[in-house]
Amino acid sequence: MYPDWISLDCARPSPTHRDAALARQEQLTKPLGALGRLETVAVELAALQATETPGADRVPVVLFAGDHGVAAQGVSAYPPEVTVQMLRNFASGGAAISVLARTLGLPLEVVDAGTLAAETIPGVIADKPRNGTRDFSRETALTAAEVVFALETGRRAIARQAEHRPQLVILGEMGIGNTTSAAAIAAALLSCPPSEIVGSGTGLDGEGRARKARVIADALALHGLTGSAPVETVLPAVGGLEIIAMTGAIIAAAQARLPILIDGFIVSVAALAAIRLNPSCRPWLIFSHRSAERGHGLLLDALGARPLIDLDLRLGEASGAATALPILRLACALHNGMATFAEAAVSNRDA
Amino acid sequence: MYPDWISLDCARPSPTHRDAALARQEQLTKPLGALGRLETVAVELAALQATETPGADRVPVVLFAGDHGVAAQGVSAYPPEVTVQMLRNFASGGAAISVLARTLGLPLEVVDAGTLAAETIPGVIADKPRNGTRDFSRETALTAAEVVFALETGRRAIARQAEHRPQLVILGEMGIGNTTSAAAIAAALLSCPPSEIVGSGTGLDGEGRARKARVIADALALHGLTGSAPVETVLPAVGGLEIIAMTGAIIAAAQARLPILIDGFIVSVAALAAIRLNPSCRPWLIFSHRSAERGHGLLLDALGARPLIDLDLRLGEASGAATALPILRLACALHNGMATFAEAAVSNRDA
Repeated sequence: MYPDWISLDCARPSPTHRDAALARQEQLTKPLGALGRLETVAVELAALQATETPGADRVPVVLFAGDHGVAAQGVSAYPPEVTVQMLRNFASGGAAISVLARTLGLPLEVVDAGTLAAETIPGVIADKPRNGTRDFSRETALTAAEVVFALETGRRAIARQAEHRPQLVILGEMGIGNTTSAAAIAAALLSCPPSEIVGSGTGLDGEGRARKARVIADALALHGLTGSAPVETVLPAVGGLEIIAMTGAIIAAAQARLPILIDGFIVSVAALAAIRLNPSCRPWLIFSHRSAERGHGLLLDALGARPLIDLDLRLGEASGAATALPILRLACALHNGMATFAEAAVSNRDA
Repeated sequence: MYPDWISLDCARPSPTHRDAALARQEQLTKPLGALGRLETVAVELAALQATETPGADRVPVVLFAGDHGVAAQGVSAYPPEVTVQMLRNFASGGAAISVLARTLGLPLEVVDAGTLAAETIPGVIADKPRNGTRDFSRETALTAAEVVFALETGRRAIARQAEHRPQLVILGEMGIGNTTSAAAIAAALLSCPPSEIVGSGTGLDGEGRARKARVIADALALHGLTGSAPVETVLPAVGGLEIIAMTGAIIAAAQARLPILIDGFIVSVAALAAIRLNPSCRPWLIFSHRSAERGHGLLLDALGARPLIDLDLRLGEASGAATALPILRLACALHNGMATFAEAAVSNRDA
């Protein structure tokens, strides 16, 4: 049912370059291990990029936006028109990710993967099979063809980043109602009760969260997703176009040997779906931050991921990944730029 | 006994600017609170800097080095000569903090506050009352006059940073044996058993840690510091010149309305001593990271501090503070640069 490329194997990180990077870390003028995760992430990047000098300078950000029919069920603190308003804000430079990308020197591409926008928005690439998903509390959100379209949207976006000669890519999302779709996907794929995954999204109170969990639980029953459901069944039933586009983008990036710095809850759900579709993409994911959105901890545990930072962020828009990026850059600068014990004539502990 | 300036009150952060910053955060195009600690730290900096546009661009790093007589007791994984070798490495650009400062565009000043170096080292400011402390396992580490000299060393260093028009300052340290002095100070000031505070430093094994804890426990008994001891008694007994210099620097910076980004375990001990000497400096401290050095968690709890990052760092040299700095910079960029709901014509949740 899915296009052939989805299941093509991703390369493995280079063991030769990992070993060389580990050997270099042992020679740098510091006690081995004293730079903690700055050491391990530099070694990981060296293996992924198959280089002796890992880097995170050229890092495009691709932001996928989509709308969700289920927003009609009162599952968000904000009205649906905010998705398209925010598309304009991304493009005009006023949103959080716009500021972060500008400050960090990251190319930012905004893709309308399925919003309700009927018109062309300057600075936004429209690449969508329809405007918004159907309300999954009543019917299947997407047809099989629409799911495939969204996967291809992600692949096309990754292909466009080649012009930046990327060393790493950041994916992000925006879409009123999309934590509801993401929580439904995660609950179905992890066979766990929606109430354990559902969070406040943009700011629901306790009552709102309970309603959101009920909407999801009812929908999973409606679509027969209460057991352990295959990803091919889950995505059309309760998926979102921006989420599925990110799933396609993750697989395509990993196949292109491009590491992906994963943002928060929703991107992690897209990553879970990507791993279910193609497990060989897993080594290419670097988890940037632990979101304050309730389900993220559970998801990170399921993925065996330990993110770099934990700053109570819950905005989405790739804001957590962008905030963590300087840590990768500094890790690379240290790995590449520090003197060895021999170069600096410093006594090592065995000397 | 101490010079008068030590006890002069520090100003309070500006409540007017804090309120204005909070009001601005409510208007930025994101759900309130969705940027978590990026919001709170920007508000805190606005209050400390008494400005509507907080910033962390001009941030000098001052690194204080010192040697420790107690290193003769086998409390470190590295020999004492490494302190002076590393001074040269800092100055010539090969050390971790050299690379971090260069990458982040931070002026780096290296101060020999009490190493064993007999000679002048190019690029290093010597400002010390003696070469190394006495071995506190046998005698008092410093005279009262030497403690005062070190406090003044710190104050002089802060005064020199004025040429950079600093918005924030980072302090760091280097000195073989200085986790032993720092753990002794912390155990005495917090009235807690050394074994609960002592960590591996540059890389001791379990047996080495036990020996280090015994050396400290015996020394605290020798100097009569087993009860709750006043800081004025603790510093000469078991202190280190670079640690006391940082204590003086912290008080002087806070008095100059200059926020201090606190590094790891040893700088936190200097901060604890500074707060004991002058409690009004506390609001001027921003804690950057949670070190992997064992005693840091206990110390952070005692100080009521919640650091920004936790990356298993345990190098010192201000490396944790420098690694956290980009987070402050991004927090400021977001605070100053994001569009408001009105500017971007985005519907707020109350709209």
